[in-house]
Amino acid sequence: MLFFLVLSFWVPAVLTSGQVWPLNNTPRKTVTLSNRGHVFKEEGVWNYTTMLLMEDEGVLILGAREAIFALDLNNITHKKAMVKWAVTSEMQRTCISKGKTQTECHNYIRILHKMSNDTMFVCGTNAFNPTCDIMSYKDGKLTLKGKQQDGKGKCPFDPFQRCASEFVDGQLYSATSFNYSGSQPVVMRSLNDTIRTEFLTSWLNEPSFIGMKHVAEGDGNPEGDDDKIYIFFNERPVEYDTYSKMEVSRVARVCKGDVGGQQILQEKWTSFLKTHLNCPVLQTRLPLLIQDVFLFCPDTWKTCMFYGVFTPQREILWPEYSAVCAYRIQDIRDVFSKGKFKKLYNDSFIEKWARYDGPVPDPRPGACINSKTREKGFSASLDLPDETLQFIRDHPLMDQTVKPSEQLQLVKKGAVFTRIVVASTTALDGSSHQVMFIGTASGSVLKAVNYDGKMVIIEEVQLFKQSEPVKILQLSITVGQLYAGSEEATVQMPLSTCDHYASCMDCVLARDPYCGWDLSTERCIAIKNIHPDTHSEMVQSLKDGNAARCPAVECTTIIKTFYPGNEVMLLCQPGSNLARVQWSVNNQTIQNSNKYNIHHNNLLILNASDSDTGFYTCTSVESSNGNDYVIQNATYEVRLGNITEYPSVRPQVQEQQKCLFFLNTLVIIPTLMLLALVVWNFYKGHFAVQSSSKKAEESPKSVSFYQVPLQIVQESSTEIIINRVAESPDMTNQHN
Amino acid sequence: MLFFLVLSFWVPAVLTSGQVWPLNNTPRKTVTLSNRGHVFKEEGVWNYTTMLLMEDEGVLILGAREAIFALDLNNITHKKAMVKWAVTSEMQRTCISKGKTQTECHNYIRILHKMSNDTMFVCGTNAFNPTCDIMSYKDGKLTLKGKQQDGKGKCPFDPFQRCASEFVDGQLYSATSFNYSGSQPVVMRSLNDTIRTEFLTSWLNEPSFIGMKHVAEGDGNPEGDDDKIYIFFNERPVEYDTYSKMEVSRVARVCKGDVGGQQILQEKWTSFLKTHLNCPVLQTRLPLLIQDVFLFCPDTWKTCMFYGVFTPQREILWPEYSAVCAYRIQDIRDVFSKGKFKKLYNDSFIEKWARYDGPVPDPRPGACINSKTREKGFSASLDLPDETLQFIRDHPLMDQTVKPSEQLQLVKKGAVFTRIVVASTTALDGSSHQVMFIGTASGSVLKAVNYDGKMVIIEEVQLFKQSEPVKILQLSITVGQLYAGSEEATVQMPLSTCDHYASCMDCVLARDPYCGWDLSTERCIAIKNIHPDTHSEMVQSLKDGNAARCPAVECTTIIKTFYPGNEVMLLCQPGSNLARVQWSVNNQTIQNSNKYNIHHNNLLILNASDSDTGFYTCTSVESSNGNDYVIQNATYEVRLGNITEYPSVRPQVQEQQKCLFFLNTLVIIPTLMLLALVVWNFYKGHFAVQSSSKKAEESPKSVSFYQVPLQIVQESSTEIIINRVAESPDMTNQHN
Repeated sequence: MLFFLVLSFWVPAVLTSGQVWPLNNTPRKTVTLSNRGHVFKEEGVWNYTTMLLMEDEGVLILGAREAIFALDLNNITHKKAMVKWAVTSEMQRTCISKGKTQTECHNYIRILHKMSNDTMFVCGTNAFNPTCDIMSYKDGKLTLKGKQQDGKGKCPFDPFQRCASEFVDGQLYSATSFNYSGSQPVVMRSLNDTIRTEFLTSWLNEPSFIGMKHVAEGDGNPEGDDDKIYIFFNERPVEYDTYSKMEVSRVARVCKGDVGGQQILQEKWTSFLKTHLNCPVLQTRLPLLIQDVFLFCPDTWKTCMFYGVFTPQREILWPEYSAVCAYRIQDIRDVFSKGKFKKLYNDSFIEKWARYDGPVPDPRPGACINSKTREKGFSASLDLPDETLQFIRDHPLMDQTVKPSEQLQLVKKGAVFTRIVVASTTALDGSSHQVMFIGTASGSVLKAVNYDGKMVIIEEVQLFKQSEPVKILQLSITVGQLYAGSEEATVQMPLSTCDHYASCMDCVLARDPYCGWDLSTERCIAIKNIHPDTHSEMVQSLKDGNAARCPAVECTTIIKTFYPGNEVMLLCQPGSNLARVQWSVNNQTIQNSNKYNIHHNNLLILNASDSDTGFYTCTSVESSNGNDYVIQNATYEVRLGNITEYPSVRPQVQEQQKCLFFLNTLVIIPTLMLLALVVWNFYKGHFAVQSSSKKAEESPKSVSFYQVPLQIVQESSTEIIINRVAESPDMTNQHN
Repeated sequence: MLFFLVLSFWVPAVLTSGQVWPLNNTPRKTVTLSNRGHVFKEEGVWNYTTMLLMEDEGVLILGAREAIFALDLNNITHKKAMVKWAVTSEMQRTCISKGKTQTECHNYIRILHKMSNDTMFVCGTNAFNPTCDIMSYKDGKLTLKGKQQDGKGKCPFDPFQRCASEFVDGQLYSATSFNYSGSQPVVMRSLNDTIRTEFLTSWLNEPSFIGMKHVAEGDGNPEGDDDKIYIFFNERPVEYDTYSKMEVSRVARVCKGDVGGQQILQEKWTSFLKTHLNCPVLQTRLPLLIQDVFLFCPDTWKTCMFYGVFTPQREILWPEYSAVCAYRIQDIRDVFSKGKFKKLYNDSFIEKWARYDGPVPDPRPGACINSKTREKGFSASLDLPDETLQFIRDHPLMDQTVKPSEQLQLVKKGAVFTRIVVASTTALDGSSHQVMFIGTASGSVLKAVNYDGKMVIIEEVQLFKQSEPVKILQLSITVGQLYAGSEEATVQMPLSTCDHYASCMDCVLARDPYCGWDLSTERCIAIKNIHPDTHSEMVQSLKDGNAARCPAVECTTIIKTFYPGNEVMLLCQPGSNLARVQWSVNNQTIQNSNKYNIHHNNLLILNASDSDTGFYTCTSVESSNGNDYVIQNATYEVRLGNITEYPSVRPQVQEQQKCLFFLNTLVIIPTLMLLALVVWNFYKGHFAVQSSSKKAEESPKSVSFYQVPLQIVQESSTEIIINRVAESPDMTNQHN
């Protein structure tokens, strides 16, 4: 039975690699932010979607609509500084007159980069007139320098169009649209010398820019290779000929040292190469599209991985699911440096992009200037021969796609992932684990870890309203906090909240690499806070989720009284979504029927009668790596309302009983007294022909007696908790 | 509020034509077959998937696995005859030895056609050795003639592969695979002369055959045109170059008189043309695929329409929805007779099918021999010039797709349509309506009608288990019955069951063109059964769904007594899925909360207390063409268990009250008597130093008083129905 439940609970799917994945992939806990984090929102300010961490200064620079904030990294509710950057009413009027909406015609801060210790580069959409400025954070004050410069090609015109940027060595790398209508997409380097992409559909074809990452591949590179800027986007593929419009995900890259060509590709990238970034999960007929990318480098740049979140192509009716694919930097490098190019074949009737198998010029088109190129006498891109430049201009697309690394994939049905960040942490046994924090379109963050190829979603934290997608995620390893922004607010939550796991079983089965159960203090605590000597008193079992070392727990019994013909609701809230709840009465398993209705784990006894009395138990079974852990969540003794049994809780009943007793005594005493008096009178011979003719009247007191039964009824249902211990369901679930 | 409900209830989507469709498109009623139809299944026989109507004989010939039945058309439970056609154990052994499963190695009857009055042509898969035979139904007996012939190319080898066939003028037209492995698909004419398709991927590319229809276009055709055989299938398109494998729906056609070419296309179709059959709903990125087709011809062949059911391409995670598209025969004819052809362009690097704009030979390739062709001296396909034949051999695919007629589309979310038949009926006002009966993968049949472009799903009838897809639908207009087959059973259901509509409102809002409400007899009756003179007493409002002429109905009140602390369940079952239920207490609307739980239209009052007493009303509002019809489904008077109010149902209470009264009297009377006696004694001067010293004892009667309240409790809940009339929810819903 349990085995069957496990099977039906996990919908498996064969992915391309032959792996079987549980698509339902339920988070173990679904919790709200409540007291574990902080929320910041400023009255009248929206669109908290740009962030810059200034860890040295201890502030989070937050860009919103027409405002920039400096918030305390440890508690974002502490607003340290704020600067307004609003559009003038004149600018707004002009913008609206061009057919844009009032909402669009504001200044949305879209770019925030650190230039030096206390200065920043900031751009905003500025009512469809993108503008940049220099900003300082000094002496607790945010100041815009007013050195406004044209933001065209740096920041989008349209505040709701996605863009990407990086700031490297005093230069801004940006990917956005170059013109008002958004029809000229561009990947550009600016500030000192300006280099950009060609306006050709073979270079960029209606792209939506997702992310840009700088990788310092030039640092101590034995081949004298250059740093790279990687650009992630979705665009209409020129290489597919389909039934209707579709998109593919791309990764492109340029070299940091690229200064453009001499004649051909003058002030254009000579190193712009792109290819299909494939996330081939679920054997979908249309490629998934990237929604966010995170660069995770545990060590040197060679260990870097790009984590991308992917969703299916949007249709009117589309299945909601999302995936995470991770790509090794070396795999991307190999496609660009060794792969074949695609070529456009065309005659008068048809056009088609297909693999080019012909000769490739030397130096290899699109390659950065490295030691070998320099040896050949090409010390900069300006020196490159026309042949190489003409080839790269015509063949920016590679034939080979980039495939994800086999490990670290997550597919989840019913979820729309929007953002991702990845943190690394060291477990009790010294092993290192990558923890993914994934923002969703329904305002939550999933915390997930991959253990031996199996993805575990530790929890889903609801940060915003269901209708508020997570639009930015930032991670501060220094303060151990995650910052998330949406249209309406910014929140901060710690990477772990171990003390919210109430019991040992809960703490260990969570498989949270940050947390372990301290057997001595009987608390779930953060691994980083423990002294190495106390390791033996800690329980943590990440890969196995083995809770066998957890001490046994006592059970809770609740007495529930009912009256026939009504319904009786018995509550049961297991602390884990992975627990399967089983109700039983007097050890007989309960199924949904005309009599019993199990809904949201609670049991409803319909039309209760005296045959429904007995002991009801709610058991939850949580499977962890093949082992079943059984927890008794609640035991109820369901009793027929028997008023004589609980004198202490039935004052009205007591009273009535006393009344009756008193009444009886009242009857007996006068009767006996009367009898005695009569006997005495007879004995004394007082009775002769005399008789009493007086009529009795009802005492007003009888009215109060009538009312007694009514008052009993109002006290019919009472719960008496006999025993409440740490493992009680209420406490287990405290942090939900 | 109501407006909001309507909006949230109907998920609209803009289709290609700009029309807005309600995707949820809920059937007004969801009912089971119960007593409205008949079920036939023979012990040990499965796969009831082939049917042949013999209306003259009054029988339904039913082909299943290794058995053919003749069932009474009026009641299929009456088996008139049966013949077994099983494979020998030797054949089965051979079949299994070739790697097939035991299930596959049986004889599945897949082809049943009428040849003459009492003879039929029948084929079965015969353990992967397709074989045909002649069968007769004479004197109540089914007999296989034993004239077995090779079924290759007529009937599939694989019993679970779809196939299609027609029997016209003594010839069998079939579409199936020609070889054991299924790799050679073929569209073939056989029995007299054999003509088939070329084994070329440009002709047929991994097709799945769905349906075949003969249209007698040659009958009295002024242009001397020929009859056509239309073939519907899905296949891999050669014309698209996509991310991964996909399919498109096709319609192809051949001429009945085609006898093949002389040199080129010898014994091959010279008239095989195919094109993309497009059902462009919901702007999907991948084309929908056809699952079944029904030929509906209200008058001459020129009025013919093909109704197709379509589903999206299957993926591991796919959104469940289905569509119906209808195609005018003239639109299909136009594409084939006037459209451009596609041509394969190829050079050493690439291949691509694109539109051919060059000259087309005369006579037009693929055209049937007609008066004009004959005038030119080509009296048969054998006479056609090589140029025409070579062209059609290389260009079987048309460039233009077939688009559906604008009217008569249905899109439904959450449903997988499998089969369709269409019936026509005449309404009370003489208008004609096409009623679609659509089989689903979940074993049900939807009955749907299009009124002025708006699709109304009158009901969904669950014929089989949820896991049993409808695999065949057949319609007999003569007996007014629908026959459906699945893997496990065959069922019969009438096209309408008017008497199951319990009230006038229910009958009229159903908008069932077969039914109307008779005001005189107060019954919902079949339109075809009424006398023209009684028209004025009938209510039917199909396009408007106007139930204003329905008489008002009285309401039902139920008294429900409860005791505090328990839950109280109040039931409400509106007779229509389109009705939106609203609960109110003392005219205050109830929302789901900690106090109230509305689930499946029933109201659960949690932790009831004396403040929950009052009048609870369950109202359902059904919108019909902009008008809201409010029906009060149930009214409850919820009372606190008040023992004094219902003497008749509370004998124990009465008794206790009497006891108390009696007790009071008992106290008062002896007390008064005692008092009188004492006064009298004083008055008489009897009291001196004498005193009474007797002690009172408790009466054993007091024990019985204690127990009274307990017995009250056992009588706590009682329902008293004050008024029950025709419009009561129970009766409205009788046929669910």
